[in-house]
Amino acid sequence: MTHTVLLIQCPDKKGIVARVSDFVFRHDANIINSDQHSTDPEGGRFFMRLEFGLDEAKVPRAKFEKDWAGIAKELGATWSIHYGTERMRMGILVSKQDHCLFDLLHRQRSGELNVDIPIVISNHKECRELVERYGIPFHYVPFTATTQSEAEGAMLELLRGTTDFAVLARYMRVVSDSFLTEYGRDVINIHHSFLPSFKGADPYRQAHERGVKIIGATAHFVTRDLDEGPIIEQMVDRIYYKDTVDDLRRKGRNLEKLALANAIQAYLEHRIILDANRTIVFQ
Amino acid sequence: MTHTVLLIQCPDKKGIVARVSDFVFRHDANIINSDQHSTDPEGGRFFMRLEFGLDEAKVPRAKFEKDWAGIAKELGATWSIHYGTERMRMGILVSKQDHCLFDLLHRQRSGELNVDIPIVISNHKECRELVERYGIPFHYVPFTATTQSEAEGAMLELLRGTTDFAVLARYMRVVSDSFLTEYGRDVINIHHSFLPSFKGADPYRQAHERGVKIIGATAHFVTRDLDEGPIIEQMVDRIYYKDTVDDLRRKGRNLEKLALANAIQAYLEHRIILDANRTIVFQ
Amino acid sequence: MTHTVLLIQCPDKKGIVARVSDFVFRHDANIINSDQHSTDPEGGRFFMRLEFGLDEAKVPRAKFEKDWAGIAKELGATWSIHYGTERMRMGILVSKQDHCLFDLLHRQRSGELNVDIPIVISNHKECRELVERYGIPFHYVPFTATTQSEAEGAMLELLRGTTDFAVLARYMRVVSDSFLTEYGRDVINIHHSFLPSFKGADPYRQAHERGVKIIGATAHFVTRDLDEGPIIEQMVDRIYYKDTVDDLRRKGRNLEKLALANAIQAYLEHRIILDANRTIVFQ
Amino acid sequence: MTHTVLLIQCPDKKGIVARVSDFVFRHDANIINSDQHSTDPEGGRFFMRLEFGLDEAKVPRAKFEKDWAGIAKELGATWSIHYGTERMRMGILVSKQDHCLFDLLHRQRSGELNVDIPIVISNHKECRELVERYGIPFHYVPFTATTQSEAEGAMLELLRGTTDFAVLARYMRVVSDSFLTEYGRDVINIHHSFLPSFKGADPYRQAHERGVKIIGATAHFVTRDLDEGPIIEQMVDRIYYKDTVDDLRRKGRNLEKLALANAIQAYLEHRIILDANRTIVFQ
Repeated sequence: MTHTVLLIQCPDKKGIVARVSDFVFRHDANIINSDQHSTDPEGGRFFMRLEFGLDEAKVPRAKFEKDWAGIAKELGATWSIHYGTERMRMGILVSKQDHCLFDLLHRQRSGELNVDIPIVISNHKECRELVERYGIPFHYVPFTATTQSEAEGAMLELLRGTTDFAVLARYMRVVSDSFLTEYGRDVINIHHSFLPSFKGADPYRQAHERGVKIIGATAHFVTRDLDEGPIIEQMVDRIYYKDTVDDLRRKGRNLEKLALANAIQAYLEHRIILDANRTIVFQ
Repeated sequence: MTHTVLLIQCPDKKGIVARVSDFVFRHDANIINSDQHSTDPEGGRFFMRLEFGLDEAKVPRAKFEKDWAGIAKELGATWSIHYGTERMRMGILVSKQDHCLFDLLHRQRSGELNVDIPIVISNHKECRELVERYGIPFHYVPFTATTQSEAEGAMLELLRGTTDFAVLARYMRVVSDSFLTEYGRDVINIHHSFLPSFKGADPYRQAHERGVKIIGATAHFVTRDLDEGPIIEQMVDRIYYKDTVDDLRRKGRNLEKLALANAIQAYLEHRIILDANRTIVFQ
Repeated sequence: MTHTVLLIQCPDKKGIVARVSDFVFRHDANIINSDQHSTDPEGGRFFMRLEFGLDEAKVPRAKFEKDWAGIAKELGATWSIHYGTERMRMGILVSKQDHCLFDLLHRQRSGELNVDIPIVISNHKECRELVERYGIPFHYVPFTATTQSEAEGAMLELLRGTTDFAVLARYMRVVSDSFLTEYGRDVINIHHSFLPSFKGADPYRQAHERGVKIIGATAHFVTRDLDEGPIIEQMVDRIYYKDTVDDLRRKGRNLEKLALANAIQAYLEHRIILDANRTIVFQ
Repeated sequence: MTHTVLLIQCPDKKGIVARVSDFVFRHDANIINSDQHSTDPEGGRFFMRLEFGLDEAKVPRAKFEKDWAGIAKELGATWSIHYGTERMRMGILVSKQDHCLFDLLHRQRSGELNVDIPIVISNHKECRELVERYGIPFHYVPFTATTQSEAEGAMLELLRGTTDFAVLARYMRVVSDSFLTEYGRDVINIHHSFLPSFKGADPYRQAHERGVKIIGATAHFVTRDLDEGPIIEQMVDRIYYKDTVDDLRRKGRNLEKLALANAIQAYLEHRIILDANRTIVFQ
């Protein structure tokens, strides 16, 4: 049995669940999990995640997809299908701060994150040793205002074909629209504030100056609008009057690691569906 | 369209979701929400909550239930059906501390809790004035060791026929097995600790003495084994070295109110299914 | 022994704690709690809260204050002193939504909040009955764009002399600078978002549209800049993809009640010191 | 200026703060932070943490300690003094699960934890490679029922003289009373439950079976009574009906890492004072 996830979205109407689950049943699949969501039962959109075991001996992948495409057309559905046999490849971009990188490397090595990490790229050299200890290729791609397009070109060269998605694990450079377009795959970023509060630079200092009582970190998809992409996960922690900006940074690192790891795990388990600029994250 | 919730549990096997959603579709119902859970895809139990609009003009309630009973028999399912037109009636038992009572009365009056409160019973007289302000009948049923069975008899007399379930909103007496059996309906309790820690009396003092750093409150169904019933909801809060036992009690009251209100709301929305001594609380 | 709180702030330098605690000791006071905070040990500001029992038989209040004023002058300190015998008077302003009002009335009646509530003012009539049940005078002061100054005049008339501070418990009108100036006392507001996110109107809708995963509520002092005043307390809760704007509002009400109650309790216990636009809230 | 922390506890009485801060002032020390706590202002115990810069050019360490010992005797105080120039040495014991070990190694290397790690001991060989990558000596000390005393003897040999305290970072063996006595220094353990719930083996399975809605992890000092030592830090996380025992373990690992890291940080900053079986953890 091949572990399979089918993600669907379409205009809502009566009978979709019946239609889809009947289809899956008739194709001899064994449903493990099924999640649905309607933004509005009358005239809204319908979202579904179906996790099932596909018996490829009886129903080959190609046939299943072809038959499904017919149903999907009927429903006006956008969809994607993900087979457990196809392990995803995650490229990581990082600058100097290595706590998120380190956390991801350990979660991957321990088997908690079911993903390959074929490459780490950095605009600094500090993390080379750590990364190479894990036997992962490390590429130093310096990045200055004048060399942005050159640097991004080099990064695209490295990422395309070798990665299925990329993670900015405290990569402190803004990636350009053209980079996103040319890469053409998902990019997940960790922002060190509770968005939409404290966009931009040095958010812990901003938070300290504003005198908030709780800080946060936000993992989100990267879009053209910096810090405005769809939010995947947020974590928060309480702070005290004694906490300095450095204390906020220290507490924040824990939040960043956890928010990013949770977001990546949801992504790898295909639990995220985009609804315009919002995410539906099934549990 | 009658807002309807169908709760099902049965042995897991292939095709249940298809079977059920097809049934509902053929009976002209419009699914609003559908939640499933399998404890183990291979040979475990299957749980489902289906929320839909039933068009009683086309499919009368009696016909729907009769047809469904046939399917349920096939599946070996236990089930219950709940119509939005039937507003539930909640009896409240309370002792001296009135914070949960008060909270529930306000949530009910404001429309947040969709329930009737036909009666409040207490073994103390302190809450009479508060309750009667709301136009709700208040009954004082004193309770001593020698009069337990007499008191419980009086309470049963008051609760049976007038209530669909009962809530112990800081009712500080243990109710007997025979009371539970004779009442025959669900009883929800709020325990002022993070169960299974600190069962029994004065849990905030126990927590203070043990020196825990986080306290909690637990809403659970009442069963024969005191403080051992299925947990519905828990809330926690961080405490500090300066906090006295009274500070814990004050913080705890906030947790108790919230845990109990959340549990009752889940109950009223028929989002809870019992799986032996555990609850599945759909969101 | 009179329960007394002394709040101090001054430029930081060596020996302040010794100076102050020696002073208190020589005036026969028994320290219950002492909290200090330095923003920066070298050249920053120093903040102190001293809670002690004053033996007025030995050291009358006037003498204590006169002697202290001498020390304070030496230290260049700003200070205030608060005697437990002087119960504060809190005026409440509210619009239609009564959950915070209700929560405060119950906390006050139960003795949890050590405060008098001499008056409730509203620009709507809905809460009259509730307030009068508590034996508290309710004043309806309608408020329209053209009558703002007239309305604020009436409110000042009601608040001045009868209240020591005011609370906007979901009072949905902006109060003017001149109102704040003329009232001349602290005003605490509850804003229904995790400030600085989602200032302005309908923050739960804004939060839903932005797709955040956590919502919050913020209690803050009211200043000329709307939603920019010093933050006293914030509370947050996790939300899910199924949560509608109304679910956010419901969850938010719990946060608003708790953030406001915590802020008021800190205020009544004189645990808040202002440091420019930030608050130090001793625990 | 030498960064210095003085921890004191004594019977409470009037004037202690004045006495201590005057002493420190007269010895030319510059107070950075001062925290006090009285369990009960009348007849309870008094706890104090004083953080200051000691000018050893003016007041040598030996003189300061000798003078202070006089005051301490007067007050009947137990005390300890800690100089920032003396970096602590932490021995780590671990079994197979390496997430806490790994987390501590990274926090140490990044400078977040101000500590030396001269040794890691394990009853398994799995972590050798990881540890040696960090240039830290790894010692394999197998441990079976029949060899407990032998194993503990070997561990004592390794820990004594080289470490100032030890951390059980998911070390899955019970250490004996005699080991604790002979080591004679603090031992901190991370227990993978929200103590006092779910003592003993496989707490996540216990939690899953009991059906709790929130799980936790607890860092505590190890004493003769297993899982009964003074609690230093606890962390909690919410769980859902879909969460399997393995999901609880995964969520739990995040809690364990954080609770243990926070506890060690508090320990290294000398923010913990023991009050019988409870800890006071200054912030």
